[in-house]
Amino acid sequence: MREVAVIGVGMTLFGRHTDKTIRELGEEALWATLQDAGVKPRDIQVAYVGNALGRLSGQEMIAGQMLLREVGITSIPITRVEDACASASFAFRESWLAVASGLYDVALAVGVEKMTNGTTEEVTRALAGASDTELEAGLGITFPGVFAMVARRHMHQYGTTREQMAQVSVKNHDNGALNPRSQFQKRFTVEEVLASRPIARPLNLFDCCPISDGCAAAVLVAKDLVSRYTTRPIWIAGSGQASGAFEPAADITIFKPTLMASRAAYTMAGMGPEDIDLAEVHDCFTIAEVIHTEDLGFAPKGEGGPFIQGGNTAIGGPIPINTSGGLLAKGHPVGATGLAQIVEIVEQLRGQSASRQVEGAKVGLAMCLGGFMHSDAGTVAAHILKS
Amino acid sequence: MREVAVIGVGMTLFGRHTDKTIRELGEEALWATLQDAGVKPRDIQVAYVGNALGRLSGQEMIAGQMLLREVGITSIPITRVEDACASASFAFRESWLAVASGLYDVALAVGVEKMTNGTTEEVTRALAGASDTELEAGLGITFPGVFAMVARRHMHQYGTTREQMAQVSVKNHDNGALNPRSQFQKRFTVEEVLASRPIARPLNLFDCCPISDGCAAAVLVAKDLVSRYTTRPIWIAGSGQASGAFEPAADITIFKPTLMASRAAYTMAGMGPEDIDLAEVHDCFTIAEVIHTEDLGFAPKGEGGPFIQGGNTAIGGPIPINTSGGLLAKGHPVGATGLAQIVEIVEQLRGQSASRQVEGAKVGLAMCLGGFMHSDAGTVAAHILKS
Repeated sequence: MREVAVIGVGMTLFGRHTDKTIRELGEEALWATLQDAGVKPRDIQVAYVGNALGRLSGQEMIAGQMLLREVGITSIPITRVEDACASASFAFRESWLAVASGLYDVALAVGVEKMTNGTTEEVTRALAGASDTELEAGLGITFPGVFAMVARRHMHQYGTTREQMAQVSVKNHDNGALNPRSQFQKRFTVEEVLASRPIARPLNLFDCCPISDGCAAAVLVAKDLVSRYTTRPIWIAGSGQASGAFEPAADITIFKPTLMASRAAYTMAGMGPEDIDLAEVHDCFTIAEVIHTEDLGFAPKGEGGPFIQGGNTAIGGPIPINTSGGLLAKGHPVGATGLAQIVEIVEQLRGQSASRQVEGAKVGLAMCLGGFMHSDAGTVAAHILKS
Repeated sequence: MREVAVIGVGMTLFGRHTDKTIRELGEEALWATLQDAGVKPRDIQVAYVGNALGRLSGQEMIAGQMLLREVGITSIPITRVEDACASASFAFRESWLAVASGLYDVALAVGVEKMTNGTTEEVTRALAGASDTELEAGLGITFPGVFAMVARRHMHQYGTTREQMAQVSVKNHDNGALNPRSQFQKRFTVEEVLASRPIARPLNLFDCCPISDGCAAAVLVAKDLVSRYTTRPIWIAGSGQASGAFEPAADITIFKPTLMASRAAYTMAGMGPEDIDLAEVHDCFTIAEVIHTEDLGFAPKGEGGPFIQGGNTAIGGPIPINTSGGLLAKGHPVGATGLAQIVEIVEQLRGQSASRQVEGAKVGLAMCLGGFMHSDAGTVAAHILKS
């Protein structure tokens, strides 16, 4: 397997793009990405497109071909990958594999979603399609409900407090206010999070990520070609992916696929949690970030709450998490999120993150989660990037 | 890149499975595949699942995780790939790449679809989502309409006759009648095809593939491991994939992605059309098989009609095409079709095809098409297998 570098990234502003079609979002992110990479559309040899809820924007199938045609990328192999909210992370991983294998030299990974043209009920119902629809969704469960149960259990088992969870939202909104591409630019206090409208107790509105539109992308090339394009490549040091173990008596405060995917990525990179300078994790709900902080090895199991409350994951802390604002503040166009994480890590490792720059960052981790079924996370991808 | 072999295949009967859920179809095909390969669920290291219209069966996302859990395949990386009717071919290709790259030794490729729980109108509408939905589907175009236009043009440009197209249906139903897993077991005459109900002139009912349910799968392993499992591996000699060129003035009687994908597969295999002993091609409509027969190099451009009428593609002819019955007779559960083609080729190359066996077959080609937009086929994958 060959070494692979990210040579360019780009994304739209995340948020409500009621005035733009999904293809216009794609066009904007793709031109930004190609320009950042210094490549022309004809240089791209293969593309993977992450998209989860294409039907909300009308193009249920072959969405990748339609999107890439907007910037003149045609004829090449274009494959859509979908695994709910992890779709773009999987597109990134398949792009890495296509180049690492030696089959292609230049790959494009894209993630795109347009959700705000659905009503909240339509989107909630569609997202419930990322649980076991025969069993769970059929019984009326939705993702706020799933994560509320996880939160209750974490509180019961480890003494995690509502204030600690709220701190995730406060931190991520602080970071989002420093990120011009973040859906929300507003800061909140712990008290404001606790006073926001209940969604699924104990989770309130500001514990939940919003419904969003957006597109993010990255160009990956083989080591041999890197010097043609850039003097500051960001290397893909590790990649891991795993699915739920679906054990009947599983502990719902541990997401096994995160343990497995991150272990695979750490092993490939020859690194451990102590080597990571910053991380983007899947904070679809505040409790999720608490759990990822533990499962990725940044805090011992059960101590994620106090760890976050103590400021350890803030910019300036030992392990800044979700410097982009995360899903909670930056927004969560589900099929685009995994690549927006890559955009943030790449820019941080290049020292381009302005007021939210993590000083001296050399290694970053991105972790994305899709679905949740039968007491376990559905699927997870983890990537370790280094400058 | 390492050499990769198919060591096991399996599939359900294709047809109307109103009594079975999509997961039950998966379970049936997967146990058959694992048994044929001589592997246990825990031997599978990575899986790719092709599925196009998950929402028709209720599980829009993470369908792969839910399907594979039925046979105890959990925890491993499972990725859904979708490119309309070519979804399973792409799942096969990603599985090949995952093993060829050296990242994994044993991969499972699955294709699955359940369509008959939708009404004909719902399915037709859903399938129209594989055209340009902003432009084409929005104007009311459906796939029978697209291929009717292609047929008209082919007739005009080359003198192709209705009888020649009907012969595709006659041949494929003849073959289907020899295949116990074929949706239709009935033979038709050219006159019966011509007398069947008009769908989109010049295409009649028996020129069109049916709506179907089914699942098909294959196990792929790296060369080093082959001898552990089988004494009759079928090797993946070539793999190619391409998307539409979307040229405004394109000739709609030529599907450019087929030319590009098959050229890539032929080049990788070091072979040409003359080396192929049998082929499974995407006969969604009779005219499609005429065009594939030309684009794959079996007949000169424009001569597909007379070539087929002359019996050249029948079992016993120089290049038997769709010995399985093809989409027209065997059925077309869209996300499963690409792997059903692989099942047929593998069994033919092993000499297991009983009354429809192509004597002495050593090399087979499978070609699958997804979508059609802007005067060009949306996306194509081609694979060459050899014994």
